[in-house]
Amino acid sequence: MTKEFAPAAASCNSDEDGDILMFRPEIKVVDCTIRDGGLTNDSHFTAKTVRAVYKAVCAAGVDYVELGYRNSKEMFSPAEFGPWRFCDEDELRKVIDGVDPDGTKLTVMQDAHKAVAEDVLPCDESVVDMIRVATYVKDVDKAIHLANNATDKGYEATINVMAISKEGGPSLAEALQQMEEETSVKAVYVVDSFGALYSEEIHFLVETYQMFLKTKEVGIHCHNSQQLAFANTIEGIVKGANYVDGTLFGLGRGAGNCPLELLLGFLKNPKFDIVPVLDVIAKEIIPLQKDVDWGYHIPFMLAGVLNQHPREAIACMMSDQKEDYVAFYKRITEGPGE
Amino acid sequence: MTKEFAPAAASCNSDEDGDILMFRPEIKVVDCTIRDGGLTNDSHFTAKTVRAVYKAVCAAGVDYVELGYRNSKEMFSPAEFGPWRFCDEDELRKVIDGVDPDGTKLTVMQDAHKAVAEDVLPCDESVVDMIRVATYVKDVDKAIHLANNATDKGYEATINVMAISKEGGPSLAEALQQMEEETSVKAVYVVDSFGALYSEEIHFLVETYQMFLKTKEVGIHCHNSQQLAFANTIEGIVKGANYVDGTLFGLGRGAGNCPLELLLGFLKNPKFDIVPVLDVIAKEIIPLQKDVDWGYHIPFMLAGVLNQHPREAIACMMSDQKEDYVAFYKRITEGPGE
Repeated sequence: MTKEFAPAAASCNSDEDGDILMFRPEIKVVDCTIRDGGLTNDSHFTAKTVRAVYKAVCAAGVDYVELGYRNSKEMFSPAEFGPWRFCDEDELRKVIDGVDPDGTKLTVMQDAHKAVAEDVLPCDESVVDMIRVATYVKDVDKAIHLANNATDKGYEATINVMAISKEGGPSLAEALQQMEEETSVKAVYVVDSFGALYSEEIHFLVETYQMFLKTKEVGIHCHNSQQLAFANTIEGIVKGANYVDGTLFGLGRGAGNCPLELLLGFLKNPKFDIVPVLDVIAKEIIPLQKDVDWGYHIPFMLAGVLNQHPREAIACMMSDQKEDYVAFYKRITEGPGE
Repeated sequence: MTKEFAPAAASCNSDEDGDILMFRPEIKVVDCTIRDGGLTNDSHFTAKTVRAVYKAVCAAGVDYVELGYRNSKEMFSPAEFGPWRFCDEDELRKVIDGVDPDGTKLTVMQDAHKAVAEDVLPCDESVVDMIRVATYVKDVDKAIHLANNATDKGYEATINVMAISKEGGPSLAEALQQMEEETSVKAVYVVDSFGALYSEEIHFLVETYQMFLKTKEVGIHCHNSQQLAFANTIEGIVKGANYVDGTLFGLGRGAGNCPLELLLGFLKNPKFDIVPVLDVIAKEIIPLQKDVDWGYHIPFMLAGVLNQHPREAIACMMSDQKEDYVAFYKRITEGPGE
């Protein structure tokens, strides 16, 4: 079969015997429902929900499951934020004990500017396998410090570059070069925090990353403001990104994320089983809709089109003016003047 | 600016003076909210809603607005279906009278196997500008008959090839060749009725169409089962499709359609004004949600992944078992045996 006629995920894949495969075995799927979904509820998921998600994601054969942030209690108040903003080892143990991970690795995230190295135990004393460090380009030195702290202590690590639709030019190039030279992370992510990017921009960013990251994989994490999170994740995969993020039913702040179930359908790796994913969506994720209205809404869409942080759109959606789209549009397109 | 750095809709566009444009002026946008949305409610929109949609789409500068089907009253009962299944000339006049179309043309659709040539007046006696004929590959002779009836009577016409994710091979090639040789339609559409296609399949289909349709444009009409309707429309545009369909807030059967508002944001043609679109969505489309639950839902997504008609998913969503996703998945993946 020529490349022209083969679907993206299958193009020219082969196993060690040279047999053609319908899937790309290098692709690692990360479920970050509890971590990124925690931005909708200050990480206040019940232990029952977290355990059910963990169990389902493991049973589905997904490569990684991210159960929250390992952020600093100095910077986030434990009185205000739930346990999944901190992911204390004993909290993690409570939800995973007795579940067969069946190869699924456990990951937590540290924000470069809101987390500290001392909160990370040596890996052999922890249930965590991977630490992902989220950063803005400007904080890349902090991110490298935390990523190296993680790898030095025995963890796998990634660095996830947020708000990438606002970045570019020499700062991004320098940051990518630094991460290539100064870390041993598995992957560096393109994170479209604002859901602002179109496919050609995803292609361009993945290719730019690949130019600098000769020894690392590219990851892709997309938001759904313009209904492009899944599509852009596919476009990342087409260009060679091998770390891909999803959340159950797209749970996430604003319009949400790339739905994990769609990714599993696309990837066609026979190790995945969608049934536990469907089951946990029905039982644990759909019920969350009574408190959080994530998904496609005009204010989120407008923020995406205009490449803006969703915070004003979220405030609009929580107000009693949530359907006055014209007023919202006029407000967010008012220029600051020169 | 090199092509590499230019977004899709802008790549190498120029006006007659050779100046670079940020948009592709050849692209024609068709709003088919009332026509395709009519599959959610048997075309029972109020005249108030249809008039408001017409007015908003005209004010937005969209190229075409499709107000329904011109199907046969012998094949659809007027007692059961609303006026927008038939689009009698006097019904159309009632909703457009007094509105300045400002360049927006009026279109109706005929189903190749459910419409008759005699229901079409000569164009100069009609308020309709274009007739789009929807067909399956197997009915292409009927479609050509209706399309030629339309162009002979003075209308613009297109042929929209439905369920394209089930088609391919020699039948499709022959149908495309016939439409190229035997009609003078403006465009032939790729219609992903089941929302089953991924970007590389869209690329392949648009290129296949272009191989045969030397004198016609390619159109693209996508459904949103896998949240890919907007993304796939963009991918069609990237490959050169110049007729693109959307509906307000994605209104449509099952998961719905490509949202018109997202398309306008992407296309960047300064003739478009999104404000009337935002306003009519708030006032006329959002209120329809109390009766019809279009959008992303697991049963629709599964039908899309499995390349199936959404009818079973719609039945599931209307039952009291709508969140028993596992049972639904097992039911629709049960093979027929050999």
